[in-house]
Amino acid sequence: MTQRSGGANVAAVDVGGTQIKAALVDEDLTVTAERRCSTPVAGPDRAREVADAAARLVAELADATGRRVDAVGLVVPGIVDAERGVVVRSGSMGWREEPLRDLVAERTGLPTAFGHDVRTAGLAEYRLGAAAGSRSAMFLALGTGLAAALVLDGRLFEGGGFAGELGHVDVGVPEPCRCDMSGCFEAVSSAAAIARRYTARTGRPVDGAAEVAALLETDPDAAAVWADAVHGIAVALAWSVSLLAVDTVVIGGGLSLAGPKLLEPVEKELAGLLTFQRSPTLVAAALGDRAGCLGAALLALDALAG
Amino acid sequence: MTQRSGGANVAAVDVGGTQIKAALVDEDLTVTAERRCSTPVAGPDRAREVADAAARLVAELADATGRRVDAVGLVVPGIVDAERGVVVRSGSMGWREEPLRDLVAERTGLPTAFGHDVRTAGLAEYRLGAAAGSRSAMFLALGTGLAAALVLDGRLFEGGGFAGELGHVDVGVPEPCRCDMSGCFEAVSSAAAIARRYTARTGRPVDGAAEVAALLETDPDAAAVWADAVHGIAVALAWSVSLLAVDTVVIGGGLSLAGPKLLEPVEKELAGLLTFQRSPTLVAAALGDRAGCLGAALLALDALAG
Repeated sequence: MTQRSGGANVAAVDVGGTQIKAALVDEDLTVTAERRCSTPVAGPDRAREVADAAARLVAELADATGRRVDAVGLVVPGIVDAERGVVVRSGSMGWREEPLRDLVAERTGLPTAFGHDVRTAGLAEYRLGAAAGSRSAMFLALGTGLAAALVLDGRLFEGGGFAGELGHVDVGVPEPCRCDMSGCFEAVSSAAAIARRYTARTGRPVDGAAEVAALLETDPDAAAVWADAVHGIAVALAWSVSLLAVDTVVIGGGLSLAGPKLLEPVEKELAGLLTFQRSPTLVAAALGDRAGCLGAALLALDALAG
Repeated sequence: MTQRSGGANVAAVDVGGTQIKAALVDEDLTVTAERRCSTPVAGPDRAREVADAAARLVAELADATGRRVDAVGLVVPGIVDAERGVVVRSGSMGWREEPLRDLVAERTGLPTAFGHDVRTAGLAEYRLGAAAGSRSAMFLALGTGLAAALVLDGRLFEGGGFAGELGHVDVGVPEPCRCDMSGCFEAVSSAAAIARRYTARTGRPVDGAAEVAALLETDPDAAAVWADAVHGIAVALAWSVSLLAVDTVVIGGGLSLAGPKLLEPVEKELAGLLTFQRSPTLVAAALGDRAGCLGAALLALDALAG
């Protein structure tokens, strides 16, 4: 039994490396139900199995609420060509040229909007979160890896799926990277890099960047690793801001939970790198891990609105 | 006596530090007449005097051809807020918050489209020149100073007049800059910087970067200065391409006349800096010093087309 309760309801589906999260979201962006499942393991059929799982979650959301689902918003990691509905490649998922949008649309029988997880989260921060009211904004997600999303004059800029891929540009810190280059932004300033570099330097394993952040005032090794990460972020932002003059830079991802411990030194170092450029407002993400889901809902609602 | 000859005619006016160039351009982008005059000298009334001179040139174009001018396209240097029609500031013209668009519209009585000289030239290269057929492109003008123009998904991105201001970002070459920082892109890779750095290194004055380019194979000082400039360009492009994934990078301005002597080493060094990113096509500008005029005509024709 399904019923239409006034406005549209969309299913937001966020595919991650370990979990698929789904939420039913109404036109007011209220989440009315949530479901999640483990991501099917790697293998040649992983894209179809993920699509099967996503379709099951969408059906469960409809069953649980008795609401009709009008559209799906699907977001995935990797190099995502939103227009074609294809994951061009994804290291974490082991995908190349997988038509995820159509796989989900076929299984659900619903219009399916499609996007990149970080870019979609950036869109949510722009429309609903820390960059609301900005004309142009950059969202920099610092987690296991890192990536940026750009909303320019109100439009999400995709670059064919390649925009914001800043992970492997040299920020001037002598640190070898898995890509065989040195000084890559991701190898210095991602949350994973901070933990790894601290352990490499001290021999002491840590759970993550948060543990390093907690040691900043007492442990010179923690402070040095943190300062390198801050430097990398400031360099990346100096180039980005000089090129695009965005009003607002939103720092998101796990590392943003460090709050002022991260933002204050980044802001200070960035100010020293800018002269004639327009300085952006630098803020921490406001939506946390809801950004992906809300962004996916926005994609679906936008598509329904035509 | 003016007559309307079929389609629209627009007056393209390109205001530079030494000359104001004007051209009458028809809908097919054919230049049917050209006029130029010296730019009025610096002073408190310079903006109004420039507008007077521009209006005189527009009247002369109409008189010379007997055609009615339907609109003006006006391009100027500096930090240009195209939407407000204002030069926010221009060091070379000595302007702050000058409403150039309205000054010219009042004097000509014509609809006046307004833009930044480099960004407008970039638009012309995108629509008619070296980046024609691209979806997104970057135009990097290397002359006395340097600046970039961005056309993203077909739209010129202005950033409130600040987009593409790459001159004062550190490219990692220890060279002091007039802005009191060190290693600024403009201080290393502009045409003026190449000439200045060669003279500082050798004590030998040169006429410009072209003279340094001519010495590359025989003079190690010329080669060293050139290599630094190439390095700066490659670093700036690595960041820009990683962030925006443009299809095409067009190198323009006086330095682009060096052709393969510039483009080949830049392409080689850039390839070494990119890994997972999408590599752009790197080309020299095709329109030369006509780009500003054609771009101004495009702005005016676009405005007429609504």
